[in-house]
Amino acid sequence: MAIEINKDLITQIAALVATQSDVAIQELLAEEHFADVAEILDEVNFDEATYIIKLLDSEKTSDILMELDEDVREKILKNLSVKEIAEEIDELDSDDAADIIAELPEERQEKVISEIEDEEFKADIQELLAYDEDSAGGLMAKEMVMVNENWTVTRCVKEMRTQAEEVTRVHSIYVVNDEGQLIGRLSLKDLLMAPARGNISKIVRPKVDFVNVNLDAEEVAKVMQKYDLEAIPVVDDNQVLVGRITIDDIVDVIKEEAEKDYQLAAGISQDVEADDSIKELVKARLPWLILGLFGGLGAVFIMEGFEDALSSYKHLFFFTPLIAAMAGNVGVQSSAIIVQGLANDIVKGSLLNRLLKEVGLSLINGIVLGLIILAVSPLIGLSFQFGLTIALSMLCVIIVAALVGTFVPIVLDKRGIDPAIATGPFITTSNDIFGIYLFFIIAKMMLGGF
Amino acid sequence: MAIEINKDLITQIAALVATQSDVAIQELLAEEHFADVAEILDEVNFDEATYIIKLLDSEKTSDILMELDEDVREKILKNLSVKEIAEEIDELDSDDAADIIAELPEERQEKVISEIEDEEFKADIQELLAYDEDSAGGLMAKEMVMVNENWTVTRCVKEMRTQAEEVTRVHSIYVVNDEGQLIGRLSLKDLLMAPARGNISKIVRPKVDFVNVNLDAEEVAKVMQKYDLEAIPVVDDNQVLVGRITIDDIVDVIKEEAEKDYQLAAGISQDVEADDSIKELVKARLPWLILGLFGGLGAVFIMEGFEDALSSYKHLFFFTPLIAAMAGNVGVQSSAIIVQGLANDIVKGSLLNRLLKEVGLSLINGIVLGLIILAVSPLIGLSFQFGLTIALSMLCVIIVAALVGTFVPIVLDKRGIDPAIATGPFITTSNDIFGIYLFFIIAKMMLGGF
Repeated sequence: MAIEINKDLITQIAALVATQSDVAIQELLAEEHFADVAEILDEVNFDEATYIIKLLDSEKTSDILMELDEDVREKILKNLSVKEIAEEIDELDSDDAADIIAELPEERQEKVISEIEDEEFKADIQELLAYDEDSAGGLMAKEMVMVNENWTVTRCVKEMRTQAEEVTRVHSIYVVNDEGQLIGRLSLKDLLMAPARGNISKIVRPKVDFVNVNLDAEEVAKVMQKYDLEAIPVVDDNQVLVGRITIDDIVDVIKEEAEKDYQLAAGISQDVEADDSIKELVKARLPWLILGLFGGLGAVFIMEGFEDALSSYKHLFFFTPLIAAMAGNVGVQSSAIIVQGLANDIVKGSLLNRLLKEVGLSLINGIVLGLIILAVSPLIGLSFQFGLTIALSMLCVIIVAALVGTFVPIVLDKRGIDPAIATGPFITTSNDIFGIYLFFIIAKMMLGGF
Repeated sequence: MAIEINKDLITQIAALVATQSDVAIQELLAEEHFADVAEILDEVNFDEATYIIKLLDSEKTSDILMELDEDVREKILKNLSVKEIAEEIDELDSDDAADIIAELPEERQEKVISEIEDEEFKADIQELLAYDEDSAGGLMAKEMVMVNENWTVTRCVKEMRTQAEEVTRVHSIYVVNDEGQLIGRLSLKDLLMAPARGNISKIVRPKVDFVNVNLDAEEVAKVMQKYDLEAIPVVDDNQVLVGRITIDDIVDVIKEEAEKDYQLAAGISQDVEADDSIKELVKARLPWLILGLFGGLGAVFIMEGFEDALSSYKHLFFFTPLIAAMAGNVGVQSSAIIVQGLANDIVKGSLLNRLLKEVGLSLINGIVLGLIILAVSPLIGLSFQFGLTIALSMLCVIIVAALVGTFVPIVLDKRGIDPAIATGPFITTSNDIFGIYLFFIIAKMMLGGF
């Protein structure tokens, strides 16, 4: 289906660029989908990519630009003049055009916008740029097929031939009244089956899903996934139709959200990829490691406080990594399930029920694990009393860790903070310190003498 | 847009069911989207859900059944006769019908299939059931609009009126030759704009994306996301058109895959939700906890081996949780980035380059963290030599943990095992043990005397 992108191809293209074999390059890439060309440009070095972009037609390169890796696109745009950028943008849909402009440094944004010749397009872009990028307004495009309820079917089809030239994908035809307010929809199927002289208002389907322009992007994704929609109209507070969001943009939102949550859970604080520079990777990873380090130093401090136990109960200090690991694992498991539940809106039921469930769950897990400890203790030469102490304090640590792992995301979510921050190193570090402290306190109560 | 699903509504519905107020229930739910009704049924208790399903029309309940939470659906289906199930299935698209039958116990599957009256539909379902559920064949539906290249546009529109009744969403019209092989596509827009007596073969677009029926579901998702497709035809090894996959099914695949990876990273071994029973949650979480427990016991064993250090260097034992935490965090960060990179096909470049990058990254992170240790040691009353020992061994542990975290997923991936298993408790536990061992070995070399 598509050209296979491998080392040989990249070498071949690099050679063609080096010899400036323009015709050969164009032939090679002419039949390729823009997403494949973008993948190739992500792989060749930066100068070669710029060369190829300048060589190909604007009509193709604008789509290619959209598909490029963000960092590559940023570099290429730096090397284009504002006039060249405006030419590329002219070929795009309004949502993609607005996204590209938004990526530019502020001084360049104004200059590029002023270079856009189509006044209507310029106005559309400026309107879109005003919206929050994580809202429906930030996702939507102005291109869609919109008809007036008072038209006949014939006039509707005629208008559509004009409008549909602009629109890449026609799903529903949106029907508005004289005030521009969304009042219903039609499918192409409906139009095909309808009598030519019929009136739109007779065949319009009044039941139409829509979202408000200020709705959060993740909420839009949930609506579209729940109702299996492929496009959804966007209205303002007066129900006036202002734009449309298509499923391909939502698929990207879903993927990005999933990757962000996964990285937060692993203690990576910004959007990085395996092929990023070392500097980028350090910036993303070091902060969480420093947090973990201070957690570990906290544990050192706690253990210094209990060092009297070393003489009689040195094994307590051998068990600290085990206790910390259990506290961490249990905490991460609890928080991961809650974070996913919050994302899917399935955390219902009272907080008290959830508390009881986690305690019950932790009791069962803790008892099983405690029994394993008791079974293993004699093999390490520990007394039954000591084994029991370890098992019981581990049980308490597990219950507390599960409760913390459950409630921290819920509390964060209620305060409007992304609960996914509560998974990963944040939870493991705090549970480590607290778990070790609790462990020694209980051991002291049960064994005494220090 | 939709009814708001809250506690009051659930109580209201429960009351209506208790008093068997059938008309009231039907009125309340008549205007609701099936996805919303399914959400309501997920919330009411099981008997009430069954009552409502039996009350509503098959045409609506079949869609509702598809949207229900898996566990709720399983229970409801248990309470329906094979004839009743066949009636529900009759209203569904072939891919959904096949999915529901596949969820039933094997003995029931045969009986339900035999109750299906439409022979063609029965044959379709049986064909779909033969495919692997994680392949394109397992995702596709047989319903689509297919026209022959030799027809006129008029005949095409006529045939479509028949075929399109079955098809919920018409995106592309697929064009086949006399052997049934996919040779191109048309959009409804093309048909609208074409002269009535024209021939399909004159307006067909030969360039059409497609996937092979045996392609892995995740690969299908990547193709559809890359090329912004909303539907893709599926062909067999002879290029014969056998089905179609729509974007809404792919959105579900993407979401499920993301959730599965996230849960694996948190050490949860099967698909659970926050509202599952305690028994389900224990089964999913305990195995990883036991793994972590044995890791911790391994650490105990290692430390027993070095217990001679207790007299002179007791602080080594206070630092073990810190070392374990660093090894764990670094390992998880490395593996998370690699796992995401593998999923997005962006882990390119030689393995050697990757090795060097991780070592460089770990050196920088490790040196910064080591300097913090050196700065803090005097405050805890530790000698510079001791602080340096801790810092250096932590640096080695970090480098090793990063390499392990990088290479384990890559090796798993090359052997066809889901690399996501390598994140979470698996990595943290093995890095804990190895890290603590390495720590003591290096401390012994630098400090001596034990």
